[in-house]
Amino acid sequence: VLRNPKRAIIGLIATGNAARKLAPAIEARGIVPDIEEIRDLDRIVGADARHQGVLIETEPLVQPELADLEGADLVLVLDQITDPQNVGAILRSAAAFGASAIVTTERHSPPLSGALAKAASGALEHVGIVKVTNLAAALRTLGTQGFFRIGLDGEAGDQLEDQSFPGPTALVLGAEDKGLRRLTAENCDLLCRLRTAGPLDSLNVSNAAAVALHTVLVNR
Amino acid sequence: VLRNPKRAIIGLIATGNAARKLAPAIEARGIVPDIEEIRDLDRIVGADARHQGVLIETEPLVQPELADLEGADLVLVLDQITDPQNVGAILRSAAAFGASAIVTTERHSPPLSGALAKAASGALEHVGIVKVTNLAAALRTLGTQGFFRIGLDGEAGDQLEDQSFPGPTALVLGAEDKGLRRLTAENCDLLCRLRTAGPLDSLNVSNAAAVALHTVLVNR
Repeated sequence: VLRNPKRAIIGLIATGNAARKLAPAIEARGIVPDIEEIRDLDRIVGADARHQGVLIETEPLVQPELADLEGADLVLVLDQITDPQNVGAILRSAAAFGASAIVTTERHSPPLSGALAKAASGALEHVGIVKVTNLAAALRTLGTQGFFRIGLDGEAGDQLEDQSFPGPTALVLGAEDKGLRRLTAENCDLLCRLRTAGPLDSLNVSNAAAVALHTVLVNR
Repeated sequence: VLRNPKRAIIGLIATGNAARKLAPAIEARGIVPDIEEIRDLDRIVGADARHQGVLIETEPLVQPELADLEGADLVLVLDQITDPQNVGAILRSAAAFGASAIVTTERHSPPLSGALAKAASGALEHVGIVKVTNLAAALRTLGTQGFFRIGLDGEAGDQLEDQSFPGPTALVLGAEDKGLRRLTAENCDLLCRLRTAGPLDSLNVSNAAAVALHTVLVNR
């Protein structure tokens, strides 16, 4: 957060130790930290939340619009994936494998804070989140922007590993239980499954996203 | 659990609905279900545990010994990965990508129940869990059994994607914060990183495991 110039910072509360560790980054932002005891931070964040001695109050990040994705190389589209830990881990993998944004629905998606932010491990600072009201319409827009839209579907005949990804690519993932909704699948250019080889063939959705993103990176 | 002949079942409590749905599997095991109201199941499992109307009491699975892994194709070795959800998701990916067992330490590993079992989504029935007291010694044993032992290390010079995996392979993963312990790394044949391409280069450990398992499967 401190190193992200796009984050408008309102205030920073830290223990003396944490403020000393972060001093260069804090000074670079021109912030005067409010030094408090660790028990005061505990009280502010609540008993269940873990922290590392620093609490930053910020404005929400200004997120891209769908139109801003034109020219992007790789984006993820999430169809009603609601678990914040999974979406956080997906954000982290997106940041690691070069996806610049995630498109998701305004409803049936977790808030960009708490468990999601923790699982994202800083990826919220790097990956844009485009929230749309209508995912099928968003997929059509991505299509007109030149994205090849690949939906992941365990029942598909084609394998993602057999594809090359010469141009802008949108990987589309659904929830583990429901998969892609009908209109989501209909607005993909291709449905693919991941190659598996074992007694089970379903993956945790964040693991499926990581494998799919990595496959696009390696097959390019 | 019902379909796993290696599971010794002590008893089964279910709602009428769940018992009807599972009737063929229950009858095949020769079990007489104890039918209860859903609120009784709620009371037994506790308020925070989610269930689907059926509660099975079983003996623990008989797990393999290290010696039993001789002849296996692919195994995972986990070095003090303690988060039960991550280990559960790793088990699930192991079952999907053809790893037959996970070797882990008796200490600093989560119990094979609760959050781990739920995240594993049935993979506990398919993937053996070998618990050892000394991971370095276990890696030496795997070496004498003919396993090529590859440790994942984000700082390594070699990339996993550039390897082929002609023989028995052991993938070794450490915790996200600590990585591989020194003796663990020293008992690997090769250290590799995963190819990444983005502003961040660290992954959730279960995502790293899924990508590594998939890479072995695809590069064989």
